[in-house]
Amino acid sequence: MGYDGLMRWQPDARGRLEEAAFALYSERGFDQTTVAEIADRAGLTERTFFRYFADKREVLFSGSDLLKTGFADAVAQAPSSAAPIDAVFAGLQAVAGFFEGRREFARRRRGIIAVNPELQERELIKMASLKDAVAAALRQHGVTEPAASLAAEAGVAVFHVAFERWTDQADEEKLLPFIRETMTQLKAVTAGA
Amino acid sequence: MGYDGLMRWQPDARGRLEEAAFALYSERGFDQTTVAEIADRAGLTERTFFRYFADKREVLFSGSDLLKTGFADAVAQAPSSAAPIDAVFAGLQAVAGFFEGRREFARRRRGIIAVNPELQERELIKMASLKDAVAAALRQHGVTEPAASLAAEAGVAVFHVAFERWTDQADEEKLLPFIRETMTQLKAVTAGA
Repeated sequence: MGYDGLMRWQPDARGRLEEAAFALYSERGFDQTTVAEIADRAGLTERTFFRYFADKREVLFSGSDLLKTGFADAVAQAPSSAAPIDAVFAGLQAVAGFFEGRREFARRRRGIIAVNPELQERELIKMASLKDAVAAALRQHGVTEPAASLAAEAGVAVFHVAFERWTDQADEEKLLPFIRETMTQLKAVTAGA
Repeated sequence: MGYDGLMRWQPDARGRLEEAAFALYSERGFDQTTVAEIADRAGLTERTFFRYFADKREVLFSGSDLLKTGFADAVAQAPSSAAPIDAVFAGLQAVAGFFEGRREFARRRRGIIAVNPELQERELIKMASLKDAVAAALRQHGVTEPAASLAAEAGVAVFHVAFERWTDQADEEKLLPFIRETMTQLKAVTAGA
């Protein structure tokens, strides 16, 4: 058993692993980092790492499925009288909460992904899958095509642009004001204003 | 030199290679097809294949860069008084012309890509790169952020949804009516109608 057995209950082991992984990915690059090094930096064992993450890529993407489910669930739970774009906005509001206090994390994650083509592809796949889930939630809600796909595209575009603007600045901690403002701007842009 | 040398001038060698590749990708799958088999089916040599395409994936994606350049150039050439969304629409009109008489080709290409995750990733990367090029063309046009990114996202969303609807049906040969209608629907969706 050794060290890991004695320390089975790890106060915030997940957070320490995340912190160690992000530091190493930033310092030496994602490809050059091993799970053993992450565990070592966190003062934990590889076995503990694999209790939280399937592989080193999952440290960056484990939140994506949560985001997708949270977004789609909120869309599905919007009042049936809501216009598709308002149901999508309810989804955006729900996911904004996930990033409470996580701006620095999000900013560092973005920097790690930006310099690695394989991670960029993974991020594009996650975004496409988010779009599909939101469109499916809208169709369950009775929205027909192509309105469902277009509202989902609009919602994910707003999320994407708002997220980049939020992580680009250091004054405002909350994501929601950026989502609100970006949605307003998308409406103005598509209206031809 | 042999056969290939004698036949150096190949009437529509490119089209024959494309036709052969598409047939083989549909019949046995992209991964299971070799360049030798494509050339053989087209009645040409491998050397001729490589005169037109860098590899077997390029048969599917060689049009993507043309599409990107055509879209971005038309955006850049729109009158400077045009609203960003109208400049984007000028880009969409330009690319619609590329697909004149190509609906069957586009439909088959979509089917080949849909069943292969690696090709799907490639398609997502091409779409992301198209979005970046359109946003860059808008910024050159004096459009500020986030309007440039949002108009580019809206334009590529319209292209994507219109393209799928066009290839899903068999009555209308032209892509442009689908682009027009989808743009109108995006405007209605974002307006909350």
